[in-house]
Amino acid sequence: MNTQRPISSVQRGADVILMAHGGGGGMTRRLIEDVMVRELGNPILAPLDDGAYLRLSGTDLVMTTDSYVVDPIFFPGGDIGRLAVCGTVNDLAMMGAEPRYLSLALIIEEGLSLADLRRIVRSVGRTAREAGVAIVTGDTKVIGRGRGGRGEAIRTGSDIFINTTGLGTRCRGVDTSVANARPGDAVIVTGAIGDHGIAIMNARDGLQLKSSLKSDVQPLWSLIKPVLKAVPRIHCLRDPTRGGVAGALCDIARSSGRGIRIQEKSLPVRPEVRGSCGILGLDPLNVANEGKALVVCAGSDANRVLKILRGHRAGKRACIIGRVASGHAGLVVMETACGGERLVDVPTGEDLPRIC
Amino acid sequence: MNTQRPISSVQRGADVILMAHGGGGGMTRRLIEDVMVRELGNPILAPLDDGAYLRLSGTDLVMTTDSYVVDPIFFPGGDIGRLAVCGTVNDLAMMGAEPRYLSLALIIEEGLSLADLRRIVRSVGRTAREAGVAIVTGDTKVIGRGRGGRGEAIRTGSDIFINTTGLGTRCRGVDTSVANARPGDAVIVTGAIGDHGIAIMNARDGLQLKSSLKSDVQPLWSLIKPVLKAVPRIHCLRDPTRGGVAGALCDIARSSGRGIRIQEKSLPVRPEVRGSCGILGLDPLNVANEGKALVVCAGSDANRVLKILRGHRAGKRACIIGRVASGHAGLVVMETACGGERLVDVPTGEDLPRIC
Repeated sequence: MNTQRPISSVQRGADVILMAHGGGGGMTRRLIEDVMVRELGNPILAPLDDGAYLRLSGTDLVMTTDSYVVDPIFFPGGDIGRLAVCGTVNDLAMMGAEPRYLSLALIIEEGLSLADLRRIVRSVGRTAREAGVAIVTGDTKVIGRGRGGRGEAIRTGSDIFINTTGLGTRCRGVDTSVANARPGDAVIVTGAIGDHGIAIMNARDGLQLKSSLKSDVQPLWSLIKPVLKAVPRIHCLRDPTRGGVAGALCDIARSSGRGIRIQEKSLPVRPEVRGSCGILGLDPLNVANEGKALVVCAGSDANRVLKILRGHRAGKRACIIGRVASGHAGLVVMETACGGERLVDVPTGEDLPRIC
Repeated sequence: MNTQRPISSVQRGADVILMAHGGGGGMTRRLIEDVMVRELGNPILAPLDDGAYLRLSGTDLVMTTDSYVVDPIFFPGGDIGRLAVCGTVNDLAMMGAEPRYLSLALIIEEGLSLADLRRIVRSVGRTAREAGVAIVTGDTKVIGRGRGGRGEAIRTGSDIFINTTGLGTRCRGVDTSVANARPGDAVIVTGAIGDHGIAIMNARDGLQLKSSLKSDVQPLWSLIKPVLKAVPRIHCLRDPTRGGVAGALCDIARSSGRGIRIQEKSLPVRPEVRGSCGILGLDPLNVANEGKALVVCAGSDANRVLKILRGHRAGKRACIIGRVASGHAGLVVMETACGGERLVDVPTGEDLPRIC
């Protein structure tokens, strides 16, 4: 079993930023560790979680930030505005915090139509109301036209990048860090995987794949809140966005020092996603999701958690995909559909650039 | 006296985003009112201040966000990293809040050298320590090469955009809203104006202006904190960034419904700034600053405020530039050096694109 991909040569050769540095895989992680942590390190940043736990005048807060550069900016099931709200409120939810406030910062390429801008901002507003957060402060910058020569996709118009930073209040007694996985825990996914990434790929002009598939982009707090209320001792929560389910599982395994075993035949994958992955040479495990969560909880809590999840519109297809093992420390192993075993690894670079 | 510029034709003709929409002038304001407020409006966002006053579990917070797209990314006196920290902590300071935490989100163009990235992130770290804030969470995205065809400047390398969102704790009993100006108030500027904007223009390759001028980019909380401690009843604070001193004064006049009279000969302007402004056809009043504040306080408090400001390295050249008047409601009038009077207006579009 090949446990190490030959990545060091790529890394050594690169003295410039490559697309792969933004892919959410191994190169992203090394860039963050080598540059960000070294130059900015402090105890709050150190865990490199999706957000920061803060205490201000006795109030426990969570702060998280994300920029969105998805291409195209409109896609089946959503747009960059909806994505920018969901991505950030879901990071808060995964950290056991109720999303409260968002900032919204737009970098707009000259030439974007006002109609497109309005459509995106309207989508931000609608999604914020759906998610129960208020957009409380903002910023708008404009950059010169032509800043959009995408190597990998065909441009259909001018571009926009969005940053949202979220502030939430932490639920008392909840600690959903990826370091908390324990042997015997159930690993639950809240629904079908890979929808977002494949919907984006299908929407790109270069790719003429006809499909009814939509991105799963949706806010998750209303799904997660009742789970945390009923079972506050949930061990880990993680949304499998960039890097997909594989990336999230590897984070859990590495941070907790535990092994994870999953079953390929348990993975909920829509036929359209499976089909597109076949054509594109992708593994659904590596494809981004924007409306799904991984929930790791004690085996004895699993049925209760599943029942709550399945009672919510966004969790109807929730299921157990694996267990935290007593062996394989730090590794993720998949029992394949044909009865074999393989290591699940974090992709080194980017499989799908500009997916979020 | 011409009180209205002929802008409506520009506005009506534009169904796309123009560089001028990002200039911080009238078109930026209308875009924000027409699109953002209409689609996102809520009571916290409504004041359209530089940040938001929030109350979470009994704690009074201020949250503010800004994206930085300055071109070039390295310039005399600073770089985009230092700017991204100072701009945001200064917005908190102007709202009477002690800067505590920052998020840091990078959008990097493929091809940026790792050395440049490291230099920028190091500058972020150094400036954060200087400003007394911690970078607590972050995000990194990479966009395809070639997204940088700047109409207005010559590219020297790959690009980077930075968003920082700041969180601060509000000082009790302090309200520095621009709506608070009252007749008789002194209008103080903490030092020479126009340094940042002119330093950026000089640094652009196309412009062969030799100068020793440096950007004034610096964190202001250590300057402002002792002022607020000694005189908590300061009426308004504003940092004259995009739009310059003129933009900030117009905001104060419009929000408070008061008139402001300033004296041209009182304005502290370095000879290099005056010279470059002459060549470029710019008014120093419209040029961005990144390390200066406007302080509006009761006339009877002015000497005390000036003494505190001048005792700090960043406020040595603090001086009174004008007064809040009982007439001219909502307008800013300048007594010119040659004895005349003119209206000070917000520029409609952009005088200096990508200055911050």
